[in-house]
Amino acid sequence: MRLWENYIRNVEPYVPGEQPHGEKIIKLNTNENPYPPAPGVLKALKEMNWEEFRKYPDPSANLLVDALADYYGLGKDQIFVGVGSDDVLGMAFLTFFNSGKPILFPDVTYSFYPVWAGLFGIPYETPVLDEEFGIRIQDYKRENGGIVIANPNAPTGLCLPLEQVEELVRANEDVVVIVDEAYIDFGGESARSLIGRYENLLVVQTFSKSRSMAGMRIGYAMGSPKLITALNHVKYSYNSYTMNQPSIILGTEALKDKEYFKSRVEAIVNTRERAKRRFGELGFSCTDSYTNFLFVTHEHIPAKELFEALRREQIYVRYFGAPRLKDYLRVTIGTEEDMEAMYHFLESY
Amino acid sequence: MRLWENYIRNVEPYVPGEQPHGEKIIKLNTNENPYPPAPGVLKALKEMNWEEFRKYPDPSANLLVDALADYYGLGKDQIFVGVGSDDVLGMAFLTFFNSGKPILFPDVTYSFYPVWAGLFGIPYETPVLDEEFGIRIQDYKRENGGIVIANPNAPTGLCLPLEQVEELVRANEDVVVIVDEAYIDFGGESARSLIGRYENLLVVQTFSKSRSMAGMRIGYAMGSPKLITALNHVKYSYNSYTMNQPSIILGTEALKDKEYFKSRVEAIVNTRERAKRRFGELGFSCTDSYTNFLFVTHEHIPAKELFEALRREQIYVRYFGAPRLKDYLRVTIGTEEDMEAMYHFLESY
Repeated sequence: MRLWENYIRNVEPYVPGEQPHGEKIIKLNTNENPYPPAPGVLKALKEMNWEEFRKYPDPSANLLVDALADYYGLGKDQIFVGVGSDDVLGMAFLTFFNSGKPILFPDVTYSFYPVWAGLFGIPYETPVLDEEFGIRIQDYKRENGGIVIANPNAPTGLCLPLEQVEELVRANEDVVVIVDEAYIDFGGESARSLIGRYENLLVVQTFSKSRSMAGMRIGYAMGSPKLITALNHVKYSYNSYTMNQPSIILGTEALKDKEYFKSRVEAIVNTRERAKRRFGELGFSCTDSYTNFLFVTHEHIPAKELFEALRREQIYVRYFGAPRLKDYLRVTIGTEEDMEAMYHFLESY
Repeated sequence: MRLWENYIRNVEPYVPGEQPHGEKIIKLNTNENPYPPAPGVLKALKEMNWEEFRKYPDPSANLLVDALADYYGLGKDQIFVGVGSDDVLGMAFLTFFNSGKPILFPDVTYSFYPVWAGLFGIPYETPVLDEEFGIRIQDYKRENGGIVIANPNAPTGLCLPLEQVEELVRANEDVVVIVDEAYIDFGGESARSLIGRYENLLVVQTFSKSRSMAGMRIGYAMGSPKLITALNHVKYSYNSYTMNQPSIILGTEALKDKEYFKSRVEAIVNTRERAKRRFGELGFSCTDSYTNFLFVTHEHIPAKELFEALRREQIYVRYFGAPRLKDYLRVTIGTEEDMEAMYHFLESY
């Protein structure tokens, strides 16, 4: 073995959900939206000026940043965009968590948080969720190097009310608090309304779920100009041009059609509420999800067995297998048709 | 000032070239290709299945990786892809340069190298180029934590012959050696032919220059499976889905039309060789560029003055201003028409 092999960064990579291909697959494993993006996205795609591809994109992605600022009534100096919320979150870890003190996030949450901490050598501690998988605010009232919570949390689907998020932020004004709101459009109240009052609060969202644009990789952060400036400096120290031309153009377009957005989110929420009842009838119990997925457990049948049985039927859901999660499946809310096919199989099983 | 502000990562961001907009602008400042991408890219854009945007892209970008492996006759385990070569290079710094010893790169080269080193806390030393801006191989035969050279180098345009690159790699088998070949398609011989022999050699290329795809953000690295695996582990520890669907699909398409690629590279090389003569006639001298830009200096007129005069005429070139570069302009090779407009102005000036 050569010496250079000793100096390769030692990491434990994140394992994304499978991306199986095929006609008959029912894909309920990666929390994708079952509906296509807004129709305007197709039009913008067809009209895109391909000759411009020869040029670099606008490094500051102004078109998209302006559209997001308008959409949310924020200043453009309060918006940062990146290649999916993973890029935004990873960059936020690198930018803000340099005190050497452990950052805090729940023991059960998005499994990328410990991976970023590992990648950048950030110490961390993971307060345990309560028995109903709830975040206990008091666990985050101690010395720390920063806080990250997913709200709604994954894979539990549970959501903290805004007052509790504010309590957590107020108790931690000496560190940066990141609220990862990948699923907020499906329920719950965004902490966006707090960013004017707390300079240390960063709220991260994504186009991958509620806007049906996972394939385009668009995420964004909202926060004080100080936080956004710091993120931009790190971005410009890594890759000046992260968002490609299609992301900027099609992302901007996706924001325009508020009616379509509202109707698709409503459809998913309705399907989710029906799914809670149907799973209940089938002997499952599930957490009170505010997201586009359910976190379900069956009174008799082991989750792993069900996961494998579903997989044999080409129905893909997510199974984590970690100690606290081994009795649960995470099931993305698909179309009514996909969900019916799954209930049908579960009934017969 | 709150405590968290002390723990923001301290960086000196890279400043990309301007992206001015307007009808009459002649843009010779960011080494973009003056020709559009291959016509097949337009067709693939029009045929793209926009409904798929709701799904995550293939995290391993297999379509593009396979196409690159085929194109170069390499194994797919020898190819890594990312969001432009900046993403690939930045990730390579993070992955391989962890020994604590200073890495080496020339004092005059791509100005992102010291920025990445700064971002990730990697010590570095910068051996000075010789008086003709050449890299002296012997400067790289001492203990170090890794080596990065741009070949051809920027902004000088000069190229090391393959034997010298091999000499440099052979003398440094205990560290990872990165050869950044952003401009190699315009001249010079790629070190790709050496990767089978040297497990520590990483060759990085891009679609931004010779393939007219700067706006799509596609870069790639070629190297031993050990290096590629390590890069993938770090990638999966940062962002599983870096390449969006349009990048994967359109990048793959761009590789297919070898005739178009050859003809556009030839056109640029012809324009470059004519430009060397024309600049000579106008009292400039320039380095023997193997790239799609010239590095020029005038015997009487200060570079900064010329830069500003050209800018007033809406002709954008790049001026760096660093001590060794202050007498030079970097001029991207545009279309014959753009170049004539510039010569015309310079004649009258």
